[in-house]
Amino acid sequence: MKFGIVIFPSKELQDLANSYRKRYDPHYALIPPHLTLKEGFETEEKPEKLTEILEAIAKEFQPIHLKFLKVSSFQPITNTIYLKVEKTDELLRLHEELYSEIPGGPPEHPFVPHVTIGQKLSNDEHSDVFGALGMLGVEHEEIVDRIHLVYQLENGSWSTYETIRLGKD
Amino acid sequence: MKFGIVIFPSKELQDLANSYRKRYDPHYALIPPHLTLKEGFETEEKPEKLTEILEAIAKEFQPIHLKFLKVSSFQPITNTIYLKVEKTDELLRLHEELYSEIPGGPPEHPFVPHVTIGQKLSNDEHSDVFGALGMLGVEHEEIVDRIHLVYQLENGSWSTYETIRLGKD
Repeated sequence: MKFGIVIFPSKELQDLANSYRKRYDPHYALIPPHLTLKEGFETEEKPEKLTEILEAIAKEFQPIHLKFLKVSSFQPITNTIYLKVEKTDELLRLHEELYSEIPGGPPEHPFVPHVTIGQKLSNDEHSDVFGALGMLGVEHEEIVDRIHLVYQLENGSWSTYETIRLGKD
Repeated sequence: MKFGIVIFPSKELQDLANSYRKRYDPHYALIPPHLTLKEGFETEEKPEKLTEILEAIAKEFQPIHLKFLKVSSFQPITNTIYLKVEKTDELLRLHEELYSEIPGGPPEHPFVPHVTIGQKLSNDEHSDVFGALGMLGVEHEEIVDRIHLVYQLENGSWSTYETIRLGKD
């Protein structure tokens, strides 16, 4: 099965992201707005086993502070527009642990914590949209106390297997 | 916020349901295939508090056996086509506890455990689809060891807040 590990931020932030994703993100219907901690990976490992490892990792963490900084873009690598999140030591350490302790290859890209709001845009669309959104201030901070183990269905959408709380007990 | 409580069955069953939902269910993109244990309800209660109550309820249950029986329909009440699940004492008791212990009104309908595969069909569509699918045998059984607390975003889609395991410890 193909799994991923994500943070679903607050409803408020998800609603904000969806107001853009609806128009600009073809993955809009496949998964709610999220911050990817570990990209989709194939493994034969059972989800119960992955959960066990995740619970051990989560014990080493306290709830994490997410500070949204601005609207940014991965251009020229891809025409992806996103809400950029401050790369704190805690987020980075969580990302690293998920890659070192859980099956799957190494990260394909350097870790840039973000919530995607537009992707697979043409160059013209990207210029228009980023031109408009890039000027927006994003003033939002929140504490997240949980991460989610999700898996992909045949139709490309993602279903949640397990919620793992950070710093439980 | 508006919450709901559901079972997400196995990937195998979700993929089967989605193969029909894609064509026949306008809610296809809003939530993965699921068995609703408690219909959407509005409450001011914090999700943390709901989780606490759910964890107390879940302790009284062991993992639940789901036996899928056949393709059925709610016609003439609604043109909803679904995979019917055997109404065991355990499922019924879980349903009742979720209505008696968690905020929200009483059930609007008698509890018919099911996974929807088509809805909001015209009468003609319903006849065609149910005529074709109603003859299909559904031979699938599985054990589910978790329920999910989900909440609705502004766009109508559902995001998972928490996974609660049945019979943990």
